Amino acid sequence: MAPHNDSSPAGSFTNGFNKMAFQPSGSSTLTVEDLTAELGSSYDSSSLDAPISHVKRPLIPGVYVPTMCFFEKETEDVDTVTIARHAVRLARAGVTGLATQGSNGEAVHLTHSERQVVTATTRKALNDAGFSHMPIIVGCGAQSTREAILLCRQAWKAGGDYALVLPPSYYAPLFAPSSQTILEFFNAVADASPIPIIIYNYPGAVNGMDMSSDIIVQLAQHPNIVGVKLTCGNTGKLNRVAAATRKLAKKYDPKNPDFLVLAGSADFSIQALAAGGHGILAGLANIAPKACIQTIELWNQGKHTEAQEMQEIVSQGDWTAIQGGVVGVKAGLEEWAGYGGYCRSPLPRPTAEQSKNWKDGFKDLMMLEKSL
Amino acid sequence: MAPHNDSSPAGSFTNGFNKMAFQPSGSSTLTVEDLTAELGSSYDSSSLDAPISHVKRPLIPGVYVPTMCFFEKETEDVDTVTIARHAVRLARAGVTGLATQGSNGEAVHLTHSERQVVTATTRKALNDAGFSHMPIIVGCGAQSTREAILLCRQAWKAGGDYALVLPPSYYAPLFAPSSQTILEFFNAVADASPIPIIIYNYPGAVNGMDMSSDIIVQLAQHPNIVGVKLTCGNTGKLNRVAAATRKLAKKYDPKNPDFLVLAGSADFSIQALAAGGHGILAGLANIAPKACIQTIELWNQGKHTEAQEMQEIVSQGDWTAIQGGVVGVKAGLEEWAGYGGYCRSPLPRPTAEQSKNWKDGFKDLMMLEKSL
Amino acid sequence: MAPHNDSSPAGSFTNGFNKMAFQPSGSSTLTVEDLTAELGSSYDSSSLDAPISHVKRPLIPGVYVPTMCFFEKETEDVDTVTIARHAVRLARAGVTGLATQGSNGEAVHLTHSERQVVTATTRKALNDAGFSHMPIIVGCGAQSTREAILLCRQAWKAGGDYALVLPPSYYAPLFAPSSQTILEFFNAVADASPIPIIIYNYPGAVNGMDMSSDIIVQLAQHPNIVGVKLTCGNTGKLNRVAAATRKLAKKYDPKNPDFLVLAGSADFSIQALAAGGHGILAGLANIAPKACIQTIELWNQGKHTEAQEMQEIVSQGDWTAIQGGVVGVKAGLEEWAGYGGYCRSPLPRPTAEQSKNWKDGFKDLMMLEKSL
Amino acid sequence: MAPHNDSSPAGSFTNGFNKMAFQPSGSSTLTVEDLTAELGSSYDSSSLDAPISHVKRPLIPGVYVPTMCFFEKETEDVDTVTIARHAVRLARAGVTGLATQGSNGEAVHLTHSERQVVTATTRKALNDAGFSHMPIIVGCGAQSTREAILLCRQAWKAGGDYALVLPPSYYAPLFAPSSQTILEFFNAVADASPIPIIIYNYPGAVNGMDMSSDIIVQLAQHPNIVGVKLTCGNTGKLNRVAAATRKLAKKYDPKNPDFLVLAGSADFSIQALAAGGHGILAGLANIAPKACIQTIELWNQGKHTEAQEMQEIVSQGDWTAIQGGVVGVKAGLEEWAGYGGYCRSPLPRPTAEQSKNWKDGFKDLMMLEKSL
Repeated sequence: MAPHNDSSPAGSFTNGFNKMAFQPSGSSTLTVEDLTAELGSSYDSSSLDAPISHVKRPLIPGVYVPTMCFFEKETEDVDTVTIARHAVRLARAGVTGLATQGSNGEAVHLTHSERQVVTATTRKALNDAGFSHMPIIVGCGAQSTREAILLCRQAWKAGGDYALVLPPSYYAPLFAPSSQTILEFFNAVADASPIPIIIYNYPGAVNGMDMSSDIIVQLAQHPNIVGVKLTCGNTGKLNRVAAATRKLAKKYDPKNPDFLVLAGSADFSIQALAAGGHGILAGLANIAPKACIQTIELWNQGKHTEAQEMQEIVSQGDWTAIQGGVVGVKAGLEEWAGYGGYCRSPLPRPTAEQSKNWKDGFKDLMMLEKSL
Repeated sequence: MAPHNDSSPAGSFTNGFNKMAFQPSGSSTLTVEDLTAELGSSYDSSSLDAPISHVKRPLIPGVYVPTMCFFEKETEDVDTVTIARHAVRLARAGVTGLATQGSNGEAVHLTHSERQVVTATTRKALNDAGFSHMPIIVGCGAQSTREAILLCRQAWKAGGDYALVLPPSYYAPLFAPSSQTILEFFNAVADASPIPIIIYNYPGAVNGMDMSSDIIVQLAQHPNIVGVKLTCGNTGKLNRVAAATRKLAKKYDPKNPDFLVLAGSADFSIQALAAGGHGILAGLANIAPKACIQTIELWNQGKHTEAQEMQEIVSQGDWTAIQGGVVGVKAGLEEWAGYGGYCRSPLPRPTAEQSKNWKDGFKDLMMLEKSL
Repeated sequence: MAPHNDSSPAGSFTNGFNKMAFQPSGSSTLTVEDLTAELGSSYDSSSLDAPISHVKRPLIPGVYVPTMCFFEKETEDVDTVTIARHAVRLARAGVTGLATQGSNGEAVHLTHSERQVVTATTRKALNDAGFSHMPIIVGCGAQSTREAILLCRQAWKAGGDYALVLPPSYYAPLFAPSSQTILEFFNAVADASPIPIIIYNYPGAVNGMDMSSDIIVQLAQHPNIVGVKLTCGNTGKLNRVAAATRKLAKKYDPKNPDFLVLAGSADFSIQALAAGGHGILAGLANIAPKACIQTIELWNQGKHTEAQEMQEIVSQGDWTAIQGGVVGVKAGLEEWAGYGGYCRSPLPRPTAEQSKNWKDGFKDLMMLEKSL
Repeated sequence: MAPHNDSSPAGSFTNGFNKMAFQPSGSSTLTVEDLTAELGSSYDSSSLDAPISHVKRPLIPGVYVPTMCFFEKETEDVDTVTIARHAVRLARAGVTGLATQGSNGEAVHLTHSERQVVTATTRKALNDAGFSHMPIIVGCGAQSTREAILLCRQAWKAGGDYALVLPPSYYAPLFAPSSQTILEFFNAVADASPIPIIIYNYPGAVNGMDMSSDIIVQLAQHPNIVGVKLTCGNTGKLNRVAAATRKLAKKYDPKNPDFLVLAGSADFSIQALAAGGHGILAGLANIAPKACIQTIELWNQGKHTEAQEMQEIVSQGDWTAIQGGVVGVKAGLEEWAGYGGYCRSPLPRPTAEQSKNWKDGFKDLMMLEKSL
């Protein structure tokens, strides 16, 4: 759970927990050169001796977008211009925050260095466009504890505010029973990370490993673990987690909960809210951010019937996004927003006919999006 | 979709669809002897020449219970006394309907003959206690089309009103692509069954086979397919199915929809309702029917906050039921209601310590149940 | 492990083990009428009071065939004429034994009654053609202990000599840890079955459940468990099981081992023999029995190079059989042997083009088969 | 398939295939500093302009070891001293080659830089101990084509001779049908890699993706794809692949085949040889190299009975290795050879009792090993 925003981290955490260091106000510009110099000193702890300051960008309820990562069509190099453009478009649409290097962000196709470039580019674009308050979540999962911690540090240096962490899974058959290894992993990363952790439960990405509500609630008690993204779609589990973590707080504030519970897909937005969830971190918002935002707004305003009508259109559009994944959503973006490009090889590039199918699959959703 | 209740089946169905025959008014008593005589004539089609009459027990929104099947502790023979007692207890608690031979009903542990005894016993008990209006759904899934049809006929003869049908899965790698084999299976069974079909989507029970919203909506267009139970927990899919099937109806009546969409677990009751679902068919209602019913009632009355408070207790209790399955729920019933017994071998019988754990796991839920 | 053939069962088995009753010499004719009369008395134990006699048909190394089950093209009724014809063709080709109701035998598409008809038909056909010495193995797996025992008894009454038993899997998440439930299941069935048990390890058919060499070796110590069929393809496991069970015997006779270890597919025949296995129980032998037999014969005669040359042709043909499963093998039989028919619905019926592909896929193998 | 050793690469390969560049004789020393300088120029193609020379280290039949990677107990930093010691011990035991960064080598726990350190350390240690002829295979699988190519280049620079490549799997649901994406991936990597590729088929490590014999044989036709490691354990597939690739060669030489087929575990060594395989690339050889070598030697000398006796001991020891994975094998090494240490976090460190169990599990195997 996160400490109150105004408390000094010193002395208020569990043993072994590093002083939290945050980006000092204003100095949020990182260049690629800065990052390259960083590489040789991945294990250098001196970088942690930044002045302790308040969290500048709280993690509040709303719509978060796991941003796609864009590449030049010829070279497949990272296309920072489009990354910046996309981030600003989403910010202007009214999203609450962005997440780089999620599954939608082709994290597994990027080197550590490229990951930092993506995050830094996003941070700079947001700041330059007047959104310096908008938080950035960064995907930092890895198979080893040390690499996960390294990614958290690199994310912080590149401008990230929170780390989204999948559990390790490659050697799952060798893990200690009763999720002991998973608990140790998350606690160790949370102890060492300069930015707070959001647990990422996505069995499909980790060979079927599914963290139960019990495990998530247990982890939620670490001061540096502040939320969960549930892509498993299990709204019963979401309900258990939201209820239990709400009760853990001394004073629960639904507008600024200590532990944020996010649904991992737009097709269960209002279902998640009904179950006590706080919002979504969903790929569909890359292509239809306003529709995602408005659905949740209407529900929160008590306009349930209107929210349900909008949710139906969103759910049908999300079905296209689910089937197409990063390939289909990029094709949809290209067709409807004029940019998108392709995923890195070996992912296939849609034929003209396939692109048209993706376009049609998003049509009703985009009609709604344009009307908002 | 089901035809309107007052229309003559003649001429209003697709080609190849058998005349539907229903239980004539009043004559709903079937004895075990009747059933034994039945066995030799499984393929005798003359039994279908019953007079056509109206559906006496409509499938309306509410809480349905996939009843557990009870066995004598010593012999493991079917315990008809407890089956009857349990059915009446649930009916008096206010459930909308019962389902025999679901996963909770240990269908895979019963012979065809025993299945019919269970259904007939349930029908008789309900009738004798004044619940002759209450519909019974019967699990009728099988690997071959002909056996599924046989089970539907046997279910009808035993007093069942609807058939709950899983897709076949054993030879799934040999099925035709694009779900063609699944579509053919369901259409063939729906064509031949004397009772309407409810599709059962439960990937965990069928080697991972997961029917998409597209397939379910396509099947919903058969006049003799009248609903779906979604145990996959995917409320995005539920939303798509509810929306599309609602639009298929000439005149949608939320109190009596043509296609009933049911959630397969109590821990996503209000989430399902928010998404357009009509109720639940959930194992937890075996042990806490009133809590399940009241949660849904409060939501439907617009008392969302109270419904959410109750849903939290239900979800935590459902977590115990999910972990324990038929073994844990029977132990919970035994501890809290004084009956339950054991599952058929080889399922383990809980030790005293394990039974206590199951008891504790249901405690908060049962405190709520007793207060209603 | 099986007791020596000449020892009286009385007094030489573990507690609780029923007197074994065997088919009395000569009276091996069972009619369909006999079987129908049987149905009402499934749990009648008086049928076990048959006189104790010696095992007439030992389970020796060689090629066993899990026979396909044939159906009339129009009605899908069991086609006993073709079943009989097929059995005799295989016997004349020189196989060591047949197995009814395996995966190839569409057991999941048959009622208990039909299963017995298939086994009885096979027994009669073999006897009438002069193969009364040939053993029949019968698939008897079920989800409940009592149904597995019932199937073993029905198999024995229908003329079966051995029961091939899969572990239960439907409620696997509820099983006791350390394979305890599996061990109890197999011991209980072995205690009660009038015919000896062969363990069937086929993870693909039971939701991924894979029995380890440790479990199989432990079960092999029951006097009424006499072999294992390994369809998992794990020849390391096969090596461990063959080695450990060989050492359990007082006096190991490779021509008549106490515990028979069979490979579940023809494409690893000589590999299995190299690893200490005793033969195969493989679907490919339905279509190319002589090729399967000769491959093993050559290896056993020490003609390894010739055996390896033949194995290559067999493995390539087996690849077609593996891809096509029961659908492809029936098509191959129809094309190459003039009979085969179709699988029961909902399994697809191949188009003319698909049938031609199956035919071509078996061509080299059939050229070899015809040359033998 | 690999070109003959004495042919000039120029002009003899498919379009788009880069000039192959090999390590010049003698200059095989790479320091960590060399490697650090490398990092900034990952995409710099000038490094490919090395003089073309002959392959110095052919890939011949035998026993290859996927070496474990060793870490300091306190810091978890890479322990180059032990890596070097281990490599030399294996070389002196008589293995044919080593493989770094396989699953046993905790590749997923290493940064790109550390991977190169491991390979370079291994190369240097072998050279210094007089084994400069011994080939090193390096694990180079990745999710994107470009990173796989990068890893191949880094492996070559660090002293690797061959690249062992898993197929990508993270976005498998989005891949083109008929394995098209997999074929494109391998062909693109093979086109660009300065070292030849060995296909790695290990479904357990890639979310169940299993490449068929058809796909492997098709890929084998690329001049820069020279072998396959089959960890799937399917010796039927191995037989098909060995047969088909043997027939592709103009002139097959069993002592130096164009396409090397290796079994991925020691418990099916002789089974693989019987099926046409050329050897093993197996983790057990980390702890018992001589036993693995001798088993294969005896078989190749025609001493089949002795080979089978030794295979049984090897298979039982391999069962311990399979269950323990990298955790259990390191514990076994520590107990039996005096070094091993631990796996990187979050993998658990065995308790004293667990270590003793691992020790006992390897006992018979180690008695055999010490006797050789």
